[in-house]
Amino acid sequence: MIDTSPVKWHLAHTSWFFETFVLAAHSPNYRPFQPEFRTLFNSYYNTVGPQPLRTERGLLTRPALADVQAYRRRVDAQMLSLLETAQELAAALLDVIELGIHHEQQHQELILTDVKHLFSRNPLRPSYRPSAPSPAENSKPLTWHAHAEGLQRVGHTGADFAFDNEKPNHRVFLHAFELTSRLVTNEEYLAFMDDQGYQRPELWLSDGWNAVQRYGWRAPLYWEQDAGCWQLFTLSGPRTWRGSEPVCHVSYYEADAFARWARARLPREAEWELAAQQQTVRGNFCEAGFLHPVPVSSESNGGPAQLFGDVWEWTQSPYLPYPGYAPPAGALGEYNGKFMCNQIVLRGGSCATPASHIRATYRNFFFPEARWQFSGIRLARDL
Amino acid sequence: MIDTSPVKWHLAHTSWFFETFVLAAHSPNYRPFQPEFRTLFNSYYNTVGPQPLRTERGLLTRPALADVQAYRRRVDAQMLSLLETAQELAAALLDVIELGIHHEQQHQELILTDVKHLFSRNPLRPSYRPSAPSPAENSKPLTWHAHAEGLQRVGHTGADFAFDNEKPNHRVFLHAFELTSRLVTNEEYLAFMDDQGYQRPELWLSDGWNAVQRYGWRAPLYWEQDAGCWQLFTLSGPRTWRGSEPVCHVSYYEADAFARWARARLPREAEWELAAQQQTVRGNFCEAGFLHPVPVSSESNGGPAQLFGDVWEWTQSPYLPYPGYAPPAGALGEYNGKFMCNQIVLRGGSCATPASHIRATYRNFFFPEARWQFSGIRLARDL
Amino acid sequence: MIDTSPVKWHLAHTSWFFETFVLAAHSPNYRPFQPEFRTLFNSYYNTVGPQPLRTERGLLTRPALADVQAYRRRVDAQMLSLLETAQELAAALLDVIELGIHHEQQHQELILTDVKHLFSRNPLRPSYRPSAPSPAENSKPLTWHAHAEGLQRVGHTGADFAFDNEKPNHRVFLHAFELTSRLVTNEEYLAFMDDQGYQRPELWLSDGWNAVQRYGWRAPLYWEQDAGCWQLFTLSGPRTWRGSEPVCHVSYYEADAFARWARARLPREAEWELAAQQQTVRGNFCEAGFLHPVPVSSESNGGPAQLFGDVWEWTQSPYLPYPGYAPPAGALGEYNGKFMCNQIVLRGGSCATPASHIRATYRNFFFPEARWQFSGIRLARDL
Amino acid sequence: MIDTSPVKWHLAHTSWFFETFVLAAHSPNYRPFQPEFRTLFNSYYNTVGPQPLRTERGLLTRPALADVQAYRRRVDAQMLSLLETAQELAAALLDVIELGIHHEQQHQELILTDVKHLFSRNPLRPSYRPSAPSPAENSKPLTWHAHAEGLQRVGHTGADFAFDNEKPNHRVFLHAFELTSRLVTNEEYLAFMDDQGYQRPELWLSDGWNAVQRYGWRAPLYWEQDAGCWQLFTLSGPRTWRGSEPVCHVSYYEADAFARWARARLPREAEWELAAQQQTVRGNFCEAGFLHPVPVSSESNGGPAQLFGDVWEWTQSPYLPYPGYAPPAGALGEYNGKFMCNQIVLRGGSCATPASHIRATYRNFFFPEARWQFSGIRLARDL
Repeated sequence: MIDTSPVKWHLAHTSWFFETFVLAAHSPNYRPFQPEFRTLFNSYYNTVGPQPLRTERGLLTRPALADVQAYRRRVDAQMLSLLETAQELAAALLDVIELGIHHEQQHQELILTDVKHLFSRNPLRPSYRPSAPSPAENSKPLTWHAHAEGLQRVGHTGADFAFDNEKPNHRVFLHAFELTSRLVTNEEYLAFMDDQGYQRPELWLSDGWNAVQRYGWRAPLYWEQDAGCWQLFTLSGPRTWRGSEPVCHVSYYEADAFARWARARLPREAEWELAAQQQTVRGNFCEAGFLHPVPVSSESNGGPAQLFGDVWEWTQSPYLPYPGYAPPAGALGEYNGKFMCNQIVLRGGSCATPASHIRATYRNFFFPEARWQFSGIRLARDL
Repeated sequence: MIDTSPVKWHLAHTSWFFETFVLAAHSPNYRPFQPEFRTLFNSYYNTVGPQPLRTERGLLTRPALADVQAYRRRVDAQMLSLLETAQELAAALLDVIELGIHHEQQHQELILTDVKHLFSRNPLRPSYRPSAPSPAENSKPLTWHAHAEGLQRVGHTGADFAFDNEKPNHRVFLHAFELTSRLVTNEEYLAFMDDQGYQRPELWLSDGWNAVQRYGWRAPLYWEQDAGCWQLFTLSGPRTWRGSEPVCHVSYYEADAFARWARARLPREAEWELAAQQQTVRGNFCEAGFLHPVPVSSESNGGPAQLFGDVWEWTQSPYLPYPGYAPPAGALGEYNGKFMCNQIVLRGGSCATPASHIRATYRNFFFPEARWQFSGIRLARDL
Repeated sequence: MIDTSPVKWHLAHTSWFFETFVLAAHSPNYRPFQPEFRTLFNSYYNTVGPQPLRTERGLLTRPALADVQAYRRRVDAQMLSLLETAQELAAALLDVIELGIHHEQQHQELILTDVKHLFSRNPLRPSYRPSAPSPAENSKPLTWHAHAEGLQRVGHTGADFAFDNEKPNHRVFLHAFELTSRLVTNEEYLAFMDDQGYQRPELWLSDGWNAVQRYGWRAPLYWEQDAGCWQLFTLSGPRTWRGSEPVCHVSYYEADAFARWARARLPREAEWELAAQQQTVRGNFCEAGFLHPVPVSSESNGGPAQLFGDVWEWTQSPYLPYPGYAPPAGALGEYNGKFMCNQIVLRGGSCATPASHIRATYRNFFFPEARWQFSGIRLARDL
Repeated sequence: MIDTSPVKWHLAHTSWFFETFVLAAHSPNYRPFQPEFRTLFNSYYNTVGPQPLRTERGLLTRPALADVQAYRRRVDAQMLSLLETAQELAAALLDVIELGIHHEQQHQELILTDVKHLFSRNPLRPSYRPSAPSPAENSKPLTWHAHAEGLQRVGHTGADFAFDNEKPNHRVFLHAFELTSRLVTNEEYLAFMDDQGYQRPELWLSDGWNAVQRYGWRAPLYWEQDAGCWQLFTLSGPRTWRGSEPVCHVSYYEADAFARWARARLPREAEWELAAQQQTVRGNFCEAGFLHPVPVSSESNGGPAQLFGDVWEWTQSPYLPYPGYAPPAGALGEYNGKFMCNQIVLRGGSCATPASHIRATYRNFFFPEARWQFSGIRLARDL
């Protein structure tokens, strides 16, 4: 699957990031661990140089895992030495180090989603690790939280870390809208399927309907029928399907079709952010030992629940630069800016996202066909 | 080329539109010209029924052109009879008739662009018809027109015809910006090419750079090198390249890369519309006998020139529903709404657009790779 | 369909053959009808020059049919003038003229098979022309004709016309074998289908089984189910299926699987030719007004019937040069020799082959997946 | 690359062969090591059951290498126990065991060629192991060995092991021919390249010329230009190019084009076998520590040299069943028979073939585009 990479590659690439953008950038005399790695583990930075084809990452039986681990140890040690001199370091370099840490967090999540996909294709149905016992089923009725129209501010502000694509903080006019109190559940999604959701073109965007035909979609990714019952393939192997869990592993097209069927729509990213500004970021489930989103438990502060850390929520907003956005100069300008086309923004973080990586202004983005992330659905409506 | 259709198909499909949505809808006893045509000339209306594969339109050697012309005559005659009773017709039916006329205008333009593409691939290099003598070269310096920030209204209002996607009229907050006084010219685009524009990945969106590699783009579509000089393939056959004409037949990716190279950006569609609201719609060049955009001639009312009827201007806005948008019920709901994903809005009308078809609120849309329309570039900047 | 070409192209290409290889070759001052045609209607002669992509033949809306007809008239007239001086012409040129006539006969057959394919894809289900009334159903029992082992001679000999690939006449050792007395019928093929022939991999070559999956083959080409009954699409439009007609429009893979199911095999081409040497070539059905193979009628001289003019019979022989084969020098060496790889020999001529074009040594050849020719099955067995 | 498999897969598949066809077939109570392996490591035996897609073999990160090694140890131990009772075993079972050993030898060679391909794509340019010191350059002049025409016998005879496709021994009439005294060298192949061999369509089969364009072939696989000089990628990493070594890693198309350029042809497989019958099989170079073909050293018995164990020699013979061939009943009938279409026979064994696996009647077969095997060229001519 073209979107996924081997774990070994993720391990090497995140150290490559520190080696390339911190160690080599800081010291003109830096001697690389192995010069070929500069090319080998470059993901997409044309400014740094050529990259192996993405489809060939799976063919790299060399360097062996032990060599990659040695590479990581060496880079880590050099980074620690450097950090001991942190008070002497330029602010710009410290910024890159911070970026590298957030970059590594992104790849921690990708390792989980990529392993899940890989294991799902393996006839042995492997388990990554046992899951914590799931919380009880819990079916909260769906309610709506209203917001009046008005000129609002969104985007990152303050001194904390944020990616360039979350800035600048800016004004946007929002019409009156409302958001659902929780995520769409498996049970609700099954009702869409039972109502011929995947067979009725009038529910779908044109490109979505084409994708349904081309890929033969009939259910979310990882839903499997076993003797007439649905089960899910999870990071703990195959598991019973549970109705009150948030539906996940749906594409944008499926989220959009579900919303149309439900006589609603997906939120705009600014609407989502406005609601999220009023909520406390909660620890995600990965730390709690869950490797899967769980049923809604508590009201969040009177506002919508499950905004953070369950599933990435598809918005209806294409991924675009904010007004006044400018990518940083140099290679790191390629981090986010060049992807601002053809992708859709998702918000909120998933059960595989490190807790400290989640915030209300965070903008994730994937192509509308992508299903291998923990991606789910929250509904919105005009008022 | 998958985006284009044979002229015979366009002729039949536009009559099909009237037969299906007006004649057959109005009279329960309507006897179709040929029942198979209901399927054969359906473009994409799933609600009406199945459609032949788009790629097979070119294989329809039957019905012959004479049969299609007879079909058109019969449908036209029936429409004229119906219109003689117009005062008795329901308002909804009159709306569909009006829509059918605008639909036919869209296909008039597509016939020109599709024939141009077809002829360009023919080694005989045919000419569709001779062009009117071109106006003199005319190189106006580029200047900028500023707009202050503010809450603005865009979208169609009033009783005149507009497509559903131009409504509702709604508020949007715009930051301060400025637009260029005229379109980007061939000469300016050549400077981008001479500055290695097609060889420098840092100027391109990631998907754009991939398209450059995949298709081997090195110049706009229809630019051809002949003994070291550029010439253009036009609807009048091959022709000398002229520097002060607006550049056209560029993709969104090329427009975006050019803008980045020029240290500017493409306009948002609301910015463009705001500027266009203050300009009079001018007759396009098709009626004047030109089949190609011509150099800028006069200032338009103190604002930006060439907003209407030269080339479709790529905006940076993905094609999305306006706040509060709802497609009409039934098959005609498929006209626009289901395409609101993965495409980019273009504004202004081209030299192939019928004059009466152009207006400030008009939203055209194509995929970012499309180059066979008369599509060009206007620049914007933040203030 | 990549294997087929428009009728207009066939008409132009066959005149192109005479213009290029006779008129232009004979007279150094020859002034071509239109110089671009030299490239435009070149099928595959690299020695002559570049060719338009085969897939683009369908895009040539220019030259119009009337222009192609004018081209044919002019070339025909020039050829007639030349032929009036035939006694002065070099033997080599006369040979090329004869080749050009046989070349045109090949395209006469291709026009029929290509039109059949094109019409079959047209939802209007057009008819090329009405068929002659079919002969009565006639179910002769299948018997076997034996041949003893021995060193035999095959390949063309004598002064009559033959393609280079039929020469030289040469010796080949054949083990004892037998051939069936007639072609496999629709009824017999249906028994294979009813016995799960398309569902049992053990009956298929590996590449054949892959083709079954890839294309979803479940019956021969042009077999269609209508309310539970099979009908055939023919050059006279859809028609009732008849059990005693020879099965046709099967690929090599289907012919081979049928033979394996029938505990037999396909003939080697030398075996087929040995049997055919003893039979009189019969006029094919095209001249009789049939556009479809008909049930077997009479014994042919005590040997196998239906050897000539019903369907092209798949052999098990890959298309290879005969021992001692040498292609002619120059462009005409590309006529046959360069295709001697990956294709399979068929023998006997079909109901669409001109009668004077059929002979016992004739070697037709197609890729094993091809089904759009009138291709059928005769069985062989080792003794 | 679709033709190659991971080493881990080869290791498991060869044990799977013994488990499936010997252990499980012999004992109805056999308890498999892991039941899923029956599916997981099935290569192409439809009779045994479904198989994972070939393209997915590289995704099997589970079972881990250690698990595969445990699987091999267990199967090996069970096979040893069984063999201790060999005198009690049915002859048919002993035949399958012998087949399994030859099957494993085939995969020993494939491991080397697949690793070579994998390493060649790795930017680190790994070496599998150091090569033995190469013998001296040695340029023997090319001479020809003639054979008179006659009815000959080819195919395996006697009690030794042979695959089903080498049988039955049968008669074939061969016209007079001659074979070259040694293989074509790098130097000779370079002369073809220098004479524009890859640029002249008249030297190529039509499908070969298409392959040249599609893949951009300009030299054999693993030839690389470094500062204007050719070097080879080998199992010992990149290495200097040497003129007198046999050329290898060419496709059938390249071998055929070279032969045409050299005014010769490739041998028929019966011609090759006739010459080889008179030569002693020599140990191949793999055992001698070479991982690459080496220059010709000595005359072989007065006949052609280098027939065995240097490179697989492309013949001009498509891979077909011998007259009277019948595959064995059951799943093992799929071993060879179903591949007898679209592939070409190669003879002689390569430097990666185990010595005991080589014999004069051995028929290897690959698609004409294949280049990753050690495949080279010997020429033939009609007399």
